[in-house]
Amino acid sequence: MDLTDLREELAGSRLIVDPDVIEAYRRDQTLVVEPGHPVAVLVAESTQDVAAALRWADRCGIPVTPRGAGTSLAGGAAAADGGLVISLAKMTAIRELRAEDELAVVEAGVVTADLDRAAARHGLMYAPDPSSHEICTVGGNVATNAGGLRCVKYGVTRDAVLGLEVVLADGRVILTGRQTVKGVTGLDLTSLFVGSEGTLGIITAVTVRLRPRPRHPPVTVVGGFDTLRAAGDAVANIIRDGVDPSLLELLDGPTLRSIDEWKHLGLDGTEAMLIAQVDGSDADERVDEIESIFARNGSDTVAISSDEAEAAQLLEVRRLAYPAAERLGHTLVEDVGVPRSRLPQLLETIEQTGNRHSVTILTVAHAGDGNTHPTFVFEPTESGDAPPQVWAAADEIFRATLTLGGTLTGEHGVGLLKQRWLELELGADTVDVQRAIKQTLDPHKILNPGKAI
Amino acid sequence: MDLTDLREELAGSRLIVDPDVIEAYRRDQTLVVEPGHPVAVLVAESTQDVAAALRWADRCGIPVTPRGAGTSLAGGAAAADGGLVISLAKMTAIRELRAEDELAVVEAGVVTADLDRAAARHGLMYAPDPSSHEICTVGGNVATNAGGLRCVKYGVTRDAVLGLEVVLADGRVILTGRQTVKGVTGLDLTSLFVGSEGTLGIITAVTVRLRPRPRHPPVTVVGGFDTLRAAGDAVANIIRDGVDPSLLELLDGPTLRSIDEWKHLGLDGTEAMLIAQVDGSDADERVDEIESIFARNGSDTVAISSDEAEAAQLLEVRRLAYPAAERLGHTLVEDVGVPRSRLPQLLETIEQTGNRHSVTILTVAHAGDGNTHPTFVFEPTESGDAPPQVWAAADEIFRATLTLGGTLTGEHGVGLLKQRWLELELGADTVDVQRAIKQTLDPHKILNPGKAI
Repeated sequence: MDLTDLREELAGSRLIVDPDVIEAYRRDQTLVVEPGHPVAVLVAESTQDVAAALRWADRCGIPVTPRGAGTSLAGGAAAADGGLVISLAKMTAIRELRAEDELAVVEAGVVTADLDRAAARHGLMYAPDPSSHEICTVGGNVATNAGGLRCVKYGVTRDAVLGLEVVLADGRVILTGRQTVKGVTGLDLTSLFVGSEGTLGIITAVTVRLRPRPRHPPVTVVGGFDTLRAAGDAVANIIRDGVDPSLLELLDGPTLRSIDEWKHLGLDGTEAMLIAQVDGSDADERVDEIESIFARNGSDTVAISSDEAEAAQLLEVRRLAYPAAERLGHTLVEDVGVPRSRLPQLLETIEQTGNRHSVTILTVAHAGDGNTHPTFVFEPTESGDAPPQVWAAADEIFRATLTLGGTLTGEHGVGLLKQRWLELELGADTVDVQRAIKQTLDPHKILNPGKAI
Repeated sequence: MDLTDLREELAGSRLIVDPDVIEAYRRDQTLVVEPGHPVAVLVAESTQDVAAALRWADRCGIPVTPRGAGTSLAGGAAAADGGLVISLAKMTAIRELRAEDELAVVEAGVVTADLDRAAARHGLMYAPDPSSHEICTVGGNVATNAGGLRCVKYGVTRDAVLGLEVVLADGRVILTGRQTVKGVTGLDLTSLFVGSEGTLGIITAVTVRLRPRPRHPPVTVVGGFDTLRAAGDAVANIIRDGVDPSLLELLDGPTLRSIDEWKHLGLDGTEAMLIAQVDGSDADERVDEIESIFARNGSDTVAISSDEAEAAQLLEVRRLAYPAAERLGHTLVEDVGVPRSRLPQLLETIEQTGNRHSVTILTVAHAGDGNTHPTFVFEPTESGDAPPQVWAAADEIFRATLTLGGTLTGEHGVGLLKQRWLELELGADTVDVQRAIKQTLDPHKILNPGKAI
């Protein structure tokens, strides 16, 4: 690959060709995916350099893999062989923050939690908070339509995006969306690019919608349950009664034991835990309702706190779930979702499937959304891939999820991992329409090939 | 046009060829648009009949105009000359309503308010409430991404749509989206069809998201102001302070006078009125804040009520705005939107532009969204079109709106009315991408030609 032409067109961004440095940009956080070997990495510092790179790549037919912080759990940022990686991580400017209009225009590389902190200085919040919010980027969140803990009340990334700056495959830079809260001029290209996993264009900047920070700190309620089903039923009750929690997380028995073996928190004997938060000035009323729902489903409330530091401690158990699983072996973090009333059935299916295949599965769920993360733990095969029984169990869980009216991925994306099952969820004609749109926007197939669609 | 083939393929839907009956399906509620003369109307009773009609139309190159209740104010449902109109108004089944999952699957012809009433029987609500909600259809709302009064708090139609059943131009029927609250499998085709004004496919059914009805009836607060700017400033304050109203409507002086001349409500001397609603158990606290903001901006609060019948009476003034304008002459209802802090500037521009062109403009606004409806009143020209000074004033207001960072249409759509200004808002490259997608999905250009993009 001759990089001379590209180098000449760049206005300041660094082009890395040192194989040792490239290695750090090859993979994301998906252990079971083996990425290709890219030949160069562009650390972009401006939209025009991204545009120059795409013009060049499109002309030469070079595959391009955009990446933010590389926290994908679906291989979304796994590099293409022989291609160019474009890192947006250095594009970190907050171009504009207009508190009076509750919006900000930020570059793709801004870290999600940094944006929320910037908003907080004006009494506002940027609501989407994926578990990786301290390290992941807004651009990556938008490209995958990331969820998070508080999206049960405040919506997913899509709901916080008003508009985009996107570099198309041929290097043209377009703006989509608007700065108003409502607007219907033309097709909703913003939504089309959100969640498209870098396959239609590279997002360089985002106009985000901010919202007032809740006036009262959330109250946290934690309950332990004797069975997974009882916890699942409690979730269904909380939703059905309109309690409107701002966070509703579930941890299953195997997860709790893996944490307990590590941290000795005295969680022994608990088969499921729910962590709920409510905010708003009527929080006390809602806490009472949660307690009564917990009790009805056989749980004692373990803890209640409206103190922020204490709440952070209570949530810490949830944050320990992945590291605790990683202590046990390699992991495949899955991401299925079902209509919320069917969560108990999904949880039961996951448990039974793990047992039947003798596969260790630790499950946490954004229970209020019906979005469930069964984490498969295993000794990797020589290739680094998961052993066949893990894939067999995953396949069964995917199919069961779809039978329950669910989806293959609630927030992580299809990436490289789930192409195989795509048509099973979407149907052949819908996949066909998606691929036709991809073909229209990326005729030379240079943009994140093999991902999403 | 030979309708024999089409007739043979239909399974029960009525095909109308009587010119007198066709006349009733030619136009929507946009007075300044002269529709074409269609040769037939299909009153669809099933998805498969819509599919049969599109297969036939695509084969024969016949333009197709889909319509719900025909309440468009932008010519979105104005019939194409020599074409087929497909009415979805008889597809009114609520196929499914699953309270425990807060969702319903409804056919396109279900009247919006009927859906909300069906949800209310389960303690739920369907939030989108365009002013025409008692007569318009869910399918039309989705096709235009309609707004409404309570969308300032609960979001627009897009936010209440989980998935769609769509008939493509070639007659294939696809499902988009899902029944889960979160999900990122593949491209977001749902959002692409929402607001596409029938140009990409015909929506035959919609999976809608319902939400718990507010536990407490809203409290309504009405304030009168001496100047339009003072009311605009009060709106900006309400948003900035995070009061989170569930409704925030503004009426200007000319509107109030037109209502007063008709109904004699004693509104004389009031140059602007704000109607706010707040819901939630902390409504009283928020009402106090609104009163204090009103006072700070020189207004006496005219009325407060938490009684539902009284609230309906207070809102009646808002509902009288359009009929009052129609008593004065022909109307062109416009639909511009700006970032909310710029609402006072937009209102001033509208007032000055009307004066400069000697055009009567009555303005109401979904002020909490920055979405403004200047209604132009005029004696129509012989062709039925608005006189040139109306279009000159509209053109100036559109351009000023864009200069303020705004949008040409907040909720009515582009339709036939705003094609001329499309590129001014979107830019040539973005329009180009939109047309490329249209071309991909509708290669023979049969779907609602001349609309939206």
